[in-house]
Amino acid sequence: MMKSLSHIDSEAIDRMEKTFRANFINSLPGFKSLNLVGTISREGKTNLAIFSQVFHLGANPALMGMIIRPDSVPRHTLTNILKTGQITLNHVLEQFVAQAHQTSARYDEEVSEFEATGLSPLFSDSFKAPYVAESVVRIGLTLRDTITIPINGTLLVVGEVVEVFVPVECLSVDGYVDIQHAGSLTVSGTDAYHRAEKLIRLSYAKPDIPLSEIPFL
Amino acid sequence: MMKSLSHIDSEAIDRMEKTFRANFINSLPGFKSLNLVGTISREGKTNLAIFSQVFHLGANPALMGMIIRPDSVPRHTLTNILKTGQITLNHVLEQFVAQAHQTSARYDEEVSEFEATGLSPLFSDSFKAPYVAESVVRIGLTLRDTITIPINGTLLVVGEVVEVFVPVECLSVDGYVDIQHAGSLTVSGTDAYHRAEKLIRLSYAKPDIPLSEIPFL
Repeated sequence: MMKSLSHIDSEAIDRMEKTFRANFINSLPGFKSLNLVGTISREGKTNLAIFSQVFHLGANPALMGMIIRPDSVPRHTLTNILKTGQITLNHVLEQFVAQAHQTSARYDEEVSEFEATGLSPLFSDSFKAPYVAESVVRIGLTLRDTITIPINGTLLVVGEVVEVFVPVECLSVDGYVDIQHAGSLTVSGTDAYHRAEKLIRLSYAKPDIPLSEIPFL
Repeated sequence: MMKSLSHIDSEAIDRMEKTFRANFINSLPGFKSLNLVGTISREGKTNLAIFSQVFHLGANPALMGMIIRPDSVPRHTLTNILKTGQITLNHVLEQFVAQAHQTSARYDEEVSEFEATGLSPLFSDSFKAPYVAESVVRIGLTLRDTITIPINGTLLVVGEVVEVFVPVECLSVDGYVDIQHAGSLTVSGTDAYHRAEKLIRLSYAKPDIPLSEIPFL
């Protein structure tokens, strides 16, 4: 616990070289969600992009948010979402982490990242956007809103959860999905991938009542 | 890989009991960042709340976003942010995970979660909002914007990174902060805490060029 800490102020951040700064700032929020985002163009061309900026927005209605920089690599993702209104999220497993990372390369519009990386598109009965067959936690979202964040021009895309696939043995009796057991990975910074290891589930906290441990599955 | 998957559709989600649904939907984005958010009232009362909805918004300017439900437990956090414009983020370590979780209890406004949980406030030279002394990755944010998300009335709070404390030995030469080495935890669902384990860092992806591994520290 007695670690020596570096203090980095605004001026030091301003002086950072571009890539150094991106690595540094991306590390600060903590561990991030890791999803392959599947979309399809109106012409039927599939697209796949890795995202670490997907987050919970609300349970009722069931909403997720994702941040997209309009000028960044996943621009075809954004175009497809706006045209078709469909998004799939697919958790990344260790077996295909390098292929997932490779989807961040700037492929031409006519190239599907599925073909380029060897990942397999999978279509559900109700969804045109492709899922990733190799993934075992898959979520279908319908576009509900887009909100521009004025300060840096990024876009918050809001999607409603309309279908979910999870391994049968990962769904707990209380609704919790054991995504560690499913093999889902997490990411830190821009390029560092991690496995998760179970530590503890804790009961709903109330003032002056001791916490108790909730067993995992 | 040949796991049997449950298919859960919109109707099944609609029928879920409230807590089951919260556990389920909160599990879907994947692993989440885990921060204690420190604020102070205009009267000087400290406040501390655990958050899993903090995310990277951009590196230049260095921005973070956080989602707050105005009617939820961290309402004092929101009031303080709006009045003072200051936020601290403090990564959670295994040593104080139960105390961190306990900050989610609905304490009265006059109770500081620091006193209630035994965590220690720490003030930097330049910041009025309290850091958590037990944490080793600490970030000071200045409020830059608040954006209401119409569909569910949640608020996106946008903060600019103005100071950072990280363990000296966790800062890589390329700017990456090794938050696993720092002991930062991650959370899934609403109450499941996890350690991270290193898997791999991968080089910047380009079409038709093989990826290489980047060593951790």
